[in-house]
Amino acid sequence: MPELDHVGIAVPNLTEALEHWRPLVGSPASGPEEVPSNRVRVVFLSVGGTHIELLEPTEPGSPVARFLSSRGPGVHHLAFRVPSVDRALAEVAERGGQLVDRVARPGARGRRVGFAHPTSFGGVLVEFVEGP
Amino acid sequence: MPELDHVGIAVPNLTEALEHWRPLVGSPASGPEEVPSNRVRVVFLSVGGTHIELLEPTEPGSPVARFLSSRGPGVHHLAFRVPSVDRALAEVAERGGQLVDRVARPGARGRRVGFAHPTSFGGVLVEFVEGP
Repeated sequence: MPELDHVGIAVPNLTEALEHWRPLVGSPASGPEEVPSNRVRVVFLSVGGTHIELLEPTEPGSPVARFLSSRGPGVHHLAFRVPSVDRALAEVAERGGQLVDRVARPGARGRRVGFAHPTSFGGVLVEFVEGP
Repeated sequence: MPELDHVGIAVPNLTEALEHWRPLVGSPASGPEEVPSNRVRVVFLSVGGTHIELLEPTEPGSPVARFLSSRGPGVHHLAFRVPSVDRALAEVAERGGQLVDRVARPGARGRRVGFAHPTSFGGVLVEFVEGP
């Protein structure tokens, strides 16, 4: 059974977002880190055995910038830790689900990641993160 | 530091939603349970140390029904486990944040719960759940 690695939250500005979250969850566990493949700058906050990832877009027109324009700040994706991202993506496709990524690509924290399409999980954008 | 108790996902229909989530996360950890105070029927799925809560509205016009009408299915709230819901809500108010509930009320699984307003956490609806 996969664990919830993190909840990704789209924010217009990391510094302002940290002012909202820090009183509740404390200091960043890592970051800020720039993730060129997703055109975001991110910070991870520890919340028990999982994390909150705050995502600030680094470019207008990038997926997170477009999410912010259309829906405003809020939860952007749920990320599950799996032994193999390629296999997790293939399993979604085998069940007839749609994918954003057909194979893993580099993500934050040096991990291999891949996204399924929100239609595959009833409207929720799901990321797979490779790790133990 | 509070732990992430669960991620609440609004769905039009629990049975159909479970078809999306069960291949990834396995069988329900609890439920279905009707929560009259929130006018929802819920199921909890274990994902490592935290949970996914699927929320199906039981009445048109209820908050989750209105969320589904305006935004479609997706992540509805993040819930953090705290020693005292009343104290957690008071701390949000002391920082100038807005609340949905001023004091705790009965929630799912026999727990005391309370919601802060999304503006208090940069657009994310945050629930506090009382527990160890």
